[in-house]
Amino acid sequence: MTAAQKKQIIKDEAEKTQPDLVLYSYWRSSCSWRVRLALNLKGFAYDYKAVHLVKNTQFSDEYTSNQNPMGRVPTLMVDGTPICESLAICNLLNDLRPDVYSLLPSDPIKKAQVLRLVETINTGIQPIQNLAVLRKFMGYFPETDKKNEVKVEWGKHWIDSGFTSLEKMLEKSAGKYCFGDEITMADLFLVPQVYNANRFKVEMSKFPNISRINASLEALPAFVSAHPDQQPDAQK
Amino acid sequence: MTAAQKKQIIKDEAEKTQPDLVLYSYWRSSCSWRVRLALNLKGFAYDYKAVHLVKNTQFSDEYTSNQNPMGRVPTLMVDGTPICESLAICNLLNDLRPDVYSLLPSDPIKKAQVLRLVETINTGIQPIQNLAVLRKFMGYFPETDKKNEVKVEWGKHWIDSGFTSLEKMLEKSAGKYCFGDEITMADLFLVPQVYNANRFKVEMSKFPNISRINASLEALPAFVSAHPDQQPDAQK
Repeated sequence: MTAAQKKQIIKDEAEKTQPDLVLYSYWRSSCSWRVRLALNLKGFAYDYKAVHLVKNTQFSDEYTSNQNPMGRVPTLMVDGTPICESLAICNLLNDLRPDVYSLLPSDPIKKAQVLRLVETINTGIQPIQNLAVLRKFMGYFPETDKKNEVKVEWGKHWIDSGFTSLEKMLEKSAGKYCFGDEITMADLFLVPQVYNANRFKVEMSKFPNISRINASLEALPAFVSAHPDQQPDAQK
Repeated sequence: MTAAQKKQIIKDEAEKTQPDLVLYSYWRSSCSWRVRLALNLKGFAYDYKAVHLVKNTQFSDEYTSNQNPMGRVPTLMVDGTPICESLAICNLLNDLRPDVYSLLPSDPIKKAQVLRLVETINTGIQPIQNLAVLRKFMGYFPETDKKNEVKVEWGKHWIDSGFTSLEKMLEKSAGKYCFGDEITMADLFLVPQVYNANRFKVEMSKFPNISRINASLEALPAFVSAHPDQQPDAQK
C-alpha cells in the first residue's frame, strides 16, 4: 500500500468513524501520552482538556464523579461515555478503526507477544514509578535531606530493571520498531517510558535496541505532535 | 444455550484447539492464578510447573533464558513458545477459543469497559504490592522493628484505595459478576486480588459489590480448582 493510499483510507474512515472525543490529559503523564499517540496514528480528531496532576485537579468532585473515580488520567470521553486506563483506550481506538495502523497483529500468538511487550511497561515499570506511588513512598522519609535522592533511586531502579528485561525481549522481536517493522501498541508505550527514564537519569546507552527504536519513532509526525512539550498545558 | 450444549461445544473445541500448554506458576502468585482461571474456564488441558518465588527459582538461568527474562511468573509455553504477562496470556486463550465463556464483549465500548476494570487491578493495584516491589521497599527499613507493620501498611494502602475506586465502578457495571451477568476477564483478576486483600488485612465490609461478586465466583468449579490451595506446590 502506498502512503497516498493509506492517507485516503484514513480520510475515508475518519468521515464515517469519528465519535465525539474529549481527552482528559496531563502534558507529562506517560499514560495520557500513549493515548495521544493512538489518537494521532489513527487520525481521530479530539478535544483536549487539561487535568493538572500536580495541583490535584484529578481529585476534584467533578472529575472523580464524571470521568474517573480513581483520580487518574487519561480519561477519553467517547460520545459522552468515560473510558479510562490507557490500554483499554488504545485497544478501543484500534477496534474503532482497525484497517490502518493496526496496533495489534491479527495472529493470536503474535498479538500476545506484542501485548507482552506492552504489559512489561504497563504493569512492570510505569505503575511503580508514577506520581501517586512516588508521593506515598516519599511520605516514609519525612525528615531526610536526601529525599529527592531516594525518590530518583526508586524510580531509576524500576525503569532500569524493567528495561534490562525489555531489551532482551526486543533482541528477539524488534525490527525497525518493537515488534517487526510495523508500529504496534508496544511502540506507543515505549516512547513515554524512555522520556521517564531520562527524567530519572537512567543510563540509556545500556539499551541499544530501546534507544534505536525510540529515536526512529520520535521523528514521526504522529509522535512529534503527541510529545508533552506540544500540549496546551505544557510548562516550559 | 443449555449447560449440556455448552459442554458439548467445549468438548468439540477442545479436540481441535488444544495446543501443547505448560504453565509456569507459583501457587500464591495472583497473576498465575488469573491464568489458571482462564485455562479452566476455557477447558484447556495443561501441564503445571512450579516456580518457587520465595526461593528465587524465577531468577535461575534456565527460567530467565527459556521462559521469562523478567524473572516473573506466569509463563505459558504454547507449543514451545513462551508467552508472559497474565493479560496477554488470558487474551490469547480467549482468542484461541472464542466461542464459549468469551472473556471480553464483542461490542468495542463494552470491551473497553471490561478492560478498564481489568486494568484498575492489573496496573493500579497488583504491581505496587507484589513480591518484587515489597522486597525493594523493605530494603529502605533495614533496622526498624516495625518492618512487617510497614509492609502491611503499604500493601493495604494500595489495595484499599484501588478497591474504593473499583467498588464505585462496579456500582454501575456489575450484575451477577463484575460486568453484567456473564463472567468476563475482570472476574479473573478480581478473585486473586481479594485473596491478597485478605492477606493484607483490608476491611472488606467496605466493599459490598466486590465481596458479593467474589463469593459468587469462588463457588464455581473452575474457580475452586484454580485456588492456590489446590495447586501441586501449595504449602499448607
